[in-house]
Amino acid sequence: MLFHVLTKVQPPPGADPEEIERLFNLEHAHAVRLQHQGKWLHLWRVVGQWTNISIFRVETPDELHEILRSLPLHPYSKTKVTALCRHPGSLADAD
Amino acid sequence: MLFHVLTKVQPPPGADPEEIERLFNLEHAHAVRLQHQGKWLHLWRVVGQWTNISIFRVETPDELHEILRSLPLHPYSKTKVTALCRHPGSLADAD
Amino acid sequence: MLFHVLTKVQPPPGADPEEIERLFNLEHAHAVRLQHQGKWLHLWRVVGQWTNISIFRVETPDELHEILRSLPLHPYSKTKVTALCRHPGSLADAD
Amino acid sequence: MLFHVLTKVQPPPGADPEEIERLFNLEHAHAVRLQHQGKWLHLWRVVGQWTNISIFRVETPDELHEILRSLPLHPYSKTKVTALCRHPGSLADAD
Amino acid sequence: MLFHVLTKVQPPPGADPEEIERLFNLEHAHAVRLQHQGKWLHLWRVVGQWTNISIFRVETPDELHEILRSLPLHPYSKTKVTALCRHPGSLADAD
Amino acid sequence: MLFHVLTKVQPPPGADPEEIERLFNLEHAHAVRLQHQGKWLHLWRVVGQWTNISIFRVETPDELHEILRSLPLHPYSKTKVTALCRHPGSLADAD
Amino acid sequence: MLFHVLTKVQPPPGADPEEIERLFNLEHAHAVRLQHQGKWLHLWRVVGQWTNISIFRVETPDELHEILRSLPLHPYSKTKVTALCRHPGSLADAD
Amino acid sequence: MLFHVLTKVQPPPGADPEEIERLFNLEHAHAVRLQHQGKWLHLWRVVGQWTNISIFRVETPDELHEILRSLPLHPYSKTKVTALCRHPGSLADAD
Amino acid sequence: MLFHVLTKVQPPPGADPEEIERLFNLEHAHAVRLQHQGKWLHLWRVVGQWTNISIFRVETPDELHEILRSLPLHPYSKTKVTALCRHPGSLADAD
Amino acid sequence: MLFHVLTKVQPPPGADPEEIERLFNLEHAHAVRLQHQGKWLHLWRVVGQWTNISIFRVETPDELHEILRSLPLHPYSKTKVTALCRHPGSLADAD
Repeated sequence: MLFHVLTKVQPPPGADPEEIERLFNLEHAHAVRLQHQGKWLHLWRVVGQWTNISIFRVETPDELHEILRSLPLHPYSKTKVTALCRHPGSLADAD
Repeated sequence: MLFHVLTKVQPPPGADPEEIERLFNLEHAHAVRLQHQGKWLHLWRVVGQWTNISIFRVETPDELHEILRSLPLHPYSKTKVTALCRHPGSLADAD
Repeated sequence: MLFHVLTKVQPPPGADPEEIERLFNLEHAHAVRLQHQGKWLHLWRVVGQWTNISIFRVETPDELHEILRSLPLHPYSKTKVTALCRHPGSLADAD
Repeated sequence: MLFHVLTKVQPPPGADPEEIERLFNLEHAHAVRLQHQGKWLHLWRVVGQWTNISIFRVETPDELHEILRSLPLHPYSKTKVTALCRHPGSLADAD
Repeated sequence: MLFHVLTKVQPPPGADPEEIERLFNLEHAHAVRLQHQGKWLHLWRVVGQWTNISIFRVETPDELHEILRSLPLHPYSKTKVTALCRHPGSLADAD
Repeated sequence: MLFHVLTKVQPPPGADPEEIERLFNLEHAHAVRLQHQGKWLHLWRVVGQWTNISIFRVETPDELHEILRSLPLHPYSKTKVTALCRHPGSLADAD
Repeated sequence: MLFHVLTKVQPPPGADPEEIERLFNLEHAHAVRLQHQGKWLHLWRVVGQWTNISIFRVETPDELHEILRSLPLHPYSKTKVTALCRHPGSLADAD
Repeated sequence: MLFHVLTKVQPPPGADPEEIERLFNLEHAHAVRLQHQGKWLHLWRVVGQWTNISIFRVETPDELHEILRSLPLHPYSKTKVTALCRHPGSLADAD
Repeated sequence: MLFHVLTKVQPPPGADPEEIERLFNLEHAHAVRLQHQGKWLHLWRVVGQWTNISIFRVETPDELHEILRSLPLHPYSKTKVTALCRHPGSLADAD
Repeated sequence: MLFHVLTKVQPPPGADPEEIERLFNLEHAHAVRLQHQGKWLHLWRVVGQWTNISIFRVETPDELHEILRSLPLHPYSKTKVTALCRHPGSLADAD
């Protein structure tokens, strides 16, 4: 099943930039692995913001929760999850 | 370039259901053609709502505006366009 | 999987009260059937409003969408779906 | 009587993670006891967020206030309480 | 138990002013009866608006829902209910 | 004249809990005195929140401002004042 | 006492323009009389909108309510009233 | 030309109260001078808040910006400027 | 002086499309004339919406109000005006 | 292609004013260079706020993202990007 995830990264004032940088790099490695596994289908950046729009394909909502919770920048992010379903006008079978 | 488009369809109270149905079918035909052309990359429905989330690939913002304006249900829709760019952690070249 | 669904019923100004009453009764029959099937786990009313809070257990988001779309009052409702997952402090297995 | 409680946990920037972890564990013990007592009927997590949706069954609003105030993470939470009543289409007697 | 109820009356465009007037008078008779019964403790108007702020004392949330639903202007009102409890600094026993 | 006052207490992150406790007790003493003077007519707590709903009877808006400004927790509160007037359906002469 | 009143005029779709024009002229006559009486101290228009910002000087909130309710365009307006008090840095005695 | 300015003063958590007091006094001196110059026409306080509503008469928007920027509490304020124009029902020539 | 004007055109449900088309063409003729006069400096469309962003150069706020009020689609538009001033980093003298 | 960019600068509480001043000057140098390159077409300040409204002309959304990300005050800013297209009533060819 597919979920649309909007993630806004907001490190708190006074966060150590090097620590944020480190988490940022960890997060990218994480994202690459999840893309290779076919879990993280799409990942885009909103122009001008530290905000991402993603499409995840998971087996259950619990799996999605575990994936999002495991992201290194998750404690500094606001996350909004929207459940998607097939659109009758879409050519795609599954996504 | 890619744009994220959120479209909420809201026929006015008193709209003729058959006319809406007709526009709905026209819109699907439209969507199929634009998907075949590679303009309308993704099309999902938000669960429980008459709301779609789409990704368009167009040459210019003007092209996107013309596409959205040409959709049969456009006069009955609220549309929010978000410009996307490449995410440094994405494996995809272009999307 | 479980979804939390907030449904606000808002018949348009000028709607025929008898037609709304008829849909209302149809909706209740629908709700009873879905509760017997174990799909519609909980159904509460928000005090003072024509707003319901429900918990649905479905196999897929598409199934939930079909259920919600089939409700007789759906065309006159605003619906907000929230995906739920297990809370680590909950005693329930699945709920 | 039943209340729907939405709780968003937001430790302040700079909170000590170990202290938050300790409160988190205390809160779970608390939740288990209140579930056994039949006060805390349901407890779910919103996917992707540190947000819970709960249903409480209490004798009075004052009892609910005391329960919520006693939760270890309460000082770091935003809480929204909604009074529920029986839905005419619900099969359940009491909830 | 006490509830704070904010009620905004909004007859739809095109409503018959005489019918609204009739419901308005019915509503006042209703309010007087409920005040005499000690259910409707306080009733104020917000300056400059057709909005009321009320305090109700009821036995259960279901009783409040029935009271609010029975008000003649209820179909043309937006109602927001807030559960109240005793304030530790209040001199009143129950109010 | 009567004013409806919604007060949300929000000590800043890092506030000394003992100092807040001290102000809290001072505020209660304050509230008791103003209730005895007939200025602070009603004082309720919103269930689940550190939010109060009050009704004040004062001679002038300036008097209300001075009262609210003098409350020990005022610097840590958000306050919303609504002017009330007599409701035509109310039995009360003055409140 | 002084009140700041924001008034947004929104005739419903389908309102008869001549009737609105008639009420508009009535309202101006009304406003002139209240300005001469010293009740309606200031009256400005927000640039680009059918929105007015006014300062009223009245004896009581009830008087303000009666004034606002008597305005010919009141049924087609949204009105927001804010109670004002003396600013310590203001040179004016009363306004 | 006239502008309506809403100013909400919000010193950050942890601000030195004496420094705020000092800026507050400076701001009043500033306000007095600008009132004498006829730039700051009206200055009121919103009851119960550290929020001011002002009317400024300036030659240009740039002049207003310089005035607002020069206010000692400006760095700790949220400011919303609304351009005003003559209301056809106003008796005043200029304000 | 310069003003930023956001205009959202929203013909009411049931508006006659030919009348809207006629006003639309009138509006364009209007816009062309005002651009030639140097009043309407810039005029853009927001992609995917019937929303315009404009920059106007006028002598006074009253002049801007008269211009906006004279636009044929003004009765069907929501308009938000923001006063602009020179940015210290801008190369333009006046723009 | 043209984008409308609203930028609100909000240094965190406790930011070093000299560092902000330094970034501010750097940002101006940056803005001058981008104006000379024809990328940053217009730059205005919103009266009374540390908020800018800009029009950028770029080749791609990615180019805009890189420009915005490179601005010295970007980490302390909230940025909202709106894609623009040609308005049929505009005299300008390209902007």
